[in-house]
Amino acid sequence: MSILIQGVQHNDLTTDVFINGNVIETIGDCKEKSAETVIDGSNKAVLPTFHNAHHHAAMAYMRSYADDLELFEWLNEHIWPLEAGITEDDVYHGARLACLEMIKSGTTFFNDMYWHFHGTARAVEEMGMRAALGAVFIDMNNADRRDANIEQAKQLLNESKRYSDRIQFQLGPHALYTVSKEALIWCSEFASEHGLMIHTHLSETEKEVEDCLKLYGIRPPEYLDRLGLLGPNLTAAHCVWLNQSEMELLAERGVKALHCPTSNMKLCSGKFRFTEAQAAGIQIAIGTDGAASNNNLCMIEEIKIAALLEKHFTGDPTALPATVAWHSGTRAAAEMFGLNSGIIQEGALADLMLVNLDNERLVPGHQLIADMVYSADSCCVNTVICDGKILMQNHHVPGEEEIIAKGREFREKFRR
Amino acid sequence: MSILIQGVQHNDLTTDVFINGNVIETIGDCKEKSAETVIDGSNKAVLPTFHNAHHHAAMAYMRSYADDLELFEWLNEHIWPLEAGITEDDVYHGARLACLEMIKSGTTFFNDMYWHFHGTARAVEEMGMRAALGAVFIDMNNADRRDANIEQAKQLLNESKRYSDRIQFQLGPHALYTVSKEALIWCSEFASEHGLMIHTHLSETEKEVEDCLKLYGIRPPEYLDRLGLLGPNLTAAHCVWLNQSEMELLAERGVKALHCPTSNMKLCSGKFRFTEAQAAGIQIAIGTDGAASNNNLCMIEEIKIAALLEKHFTGDPTALPATVAWHSGTRAAAEMFGLNSGIIQEGALADLMLVNLDNERLVPGHQLIADMVYSADSCCVNTVICDGKILMQNHHVPGEEEIIAKGREFREKFRR
Repeated sequence: MSILIQGVQHNDLTTDVFINGNVIETIGDCKEKSAETVIDGSNKAVLPTFHNAHHHAAMAYMRSYADDLELFEWLNEHIWPLEAGITEDDVYHGARLACLEMIKSGTTFFNDMYWHFHGTARAVEEMGMRAALGAVFIDMNNADRRDANIEQAKQLLNESKRYSDRIQFQLGPHALYTVSKEALIWCSEFASEHGLMIHTHLSETEKEVEDCLKLYGIRPPEYLDRLGLLGPNLTAAHCVWLNQSEMELLAERGVKALHCPTSNMKLCSGKFRFTEAQAAGIQIAIGTDGAASNNNLCMIEEIKIAALLEKHFTGDPTALPATVAWHSGTRAAAEMFGLNSGIIQEGALADLMLVNLDNERLVPGHQLIADMVYSADSCCVNTVICDGKILMQNHHVPGEEEIIAKGREFREKFRR
Repeated sequence: MSILIQGVQHNDLTTDVFINGNVIETIGDCKEKSAETVIDGSNKAVLPTFHNAHHHAAMAYMRSYADDLELFEWLNEHIWPLEAGITEDDVYHGARLACLEMIKSGTTFFNDMYWHFHGTARAVEEMGMRAALGAVFIDMNNADRRDANIEQAKQLLNESKRYSDRIQFQLGPHALYTVSKEALIWCSEFASEHGLMIHTHLSETEKEVEDCLKLYGIRPPEYLDRLGLLGPNLTAAHCVWLNQSEMELLAERGVKALHCPTSNMKLCSGKFRFTEAQAAGIQIAIGTDGAASNNNLCMIEEIKIAALLEKHFTGDPTALPATVAWHSGTRAAAEMFGLNSGIIQEGALADLMLVNLDNERLVPGHQLIADMVYSADSCCVNTVICDGKILMQNHHVPGEEEIIAKGREFREKFRR
């Protein structure tokens, strides 16, 4: 399988891009090359795709089901009761809807945490994206539930081998307040043994910090550190309530921070201190969180909101400039997961998008990256390629009509 | 001219909408009616269009020209030098690009302030939108410039009569720090005499407040009040640095506040206190500001950012809920300008949009208004009608290719 993109803008120059298998083989004059598929790149620019660093894809089924509520009313009276009745098939259809939305806005990878691993895995496999998908742990300090979580994780590790290498299996202990100490330690050891990443929520709310202090006399990062969780294989979502020494600890351990500005603003969780965390040496990537708390999965919007919030919060208009926001939404999560994607260069994975330079939001076109961060929306994304396969052309994903029809059934199923 | 929209969603029911001339004549069964144009409303919902409350349309030509800079470096070294060479023709082409972008994202009215009135007026007239366009005042306390501003305003008032009633002529004294006391007083009197609205910037930055205190010993609202500016015909952009008594003063005088959250965040101007201003009784509408400080003109994005920022700032997730954000982006500015638009009801102006319920961002569709505020982007907007005329169908505006081609010329003209 080979794809030749002819006459496309790359770093302000017009060039060709030749994809061989799942790799970008050549960036430059490809007049001599022939390919199975040829794409006309005129009035388009080639860019890396977005990598959504923290997500609960299947939750697309509850988009706009409950908004503008206090956090615990939202969780206890709306989100959790709805989730209680969810089947693997629901997760599959919710995750397909999420994948569709992500592809349409230029995202090809997401770091996920949700129940019914196979539901999401089947969706990702079919839709042609990449994802890090996990075995979720929530045992609420119950030994039976802990054992069941552990058994399931072992089983899923084996079962995950049936999928392509676009799916990376990981462990997903939800948070230190929902997962027992024993299960957290088990996750740390099992992940080391099998070379797995671990995905958790960390210091998301002030209450989490206060409760941790009450229960254990220490704050969340130190608690996880004592259990052996803090390491280069840990991706920690939110990290809103870190103090300076905790930032230094996370940086020292190589923990990755996943910043979700929209979700944090909408649920009033607080503010992740991007500039300080970056200065402390923490690797940071940006994610949308799930549709229940955003309510879209659009990384174009997310990196803009991250940049705006950081400027507003610090009072410094030079904070989190467009180039940093762009990196945090594209390459950053790829590096965390050992993927040679999120970048357009020879030898990199052929995960890329073509944006339409004729879209009004990219005109006049003084600075493409600033336009992508501050002006673009999903209408600008014309073509998406992942792993050398075309997932979308002319802003249409094959089969999208059926995914929409199935997605709409959730409205009746969970009628308010 | 009549338009019949058949079988469209309105308030969760399927109905027909009949437009006669520039008015919504009937909402209900229209089987018996015939119309010159029939639109199939299936899988679409009819909604009011957005009304962009504060804007500098022509500045679309400098989108992403200079970002991530300190305010005064941004103005002095980038924006103002660029603006110094602008012609009426540049303004016309910049404003057409802005109008195109606004139509594509569902906006049909904007409240503007920019040089070369006729450039913007021609663009609005041709594009079929509505706008409040003004004679700008910036005299920097120079008597000759003041007299020239005044002469121009008188002349433009006469010349503005050549345009349709979609264009509302107003006065645009830029701000109290760029316009002399004499010119401000003249604006107040001339506006009273001719029944004009006045559009200004008020309490946008802390420096403006400090400088006003130093020069006049009073804060900006009191200063304008002494000059007779504070009245129901004043729309005041930003209003970031109002204290409680100033909010009460503005409410008492009937002054309208124009909230621009993205611009305020991007330039670190501070935070408009929406909840407090609303409680004080101020009418509030939301605007995008110009493309130089946003960098798009998308009201869908703007009302989401307004809602997120208010929740984050107050720490209250119930603050500025979706319904209020929606009203502030649609009906609010219409009411300020005496337009019976921004609402779908019989007798209202036929300014409306059809959104595509098959767009992935509006699925499953639990709550349409929450979906529009928190999830949608411009891709959801299928059809836009203003003043009973179709401006866009199937997300295509007739002539858009030529507008884009002209817009792109600015890249060469103002090459960095």
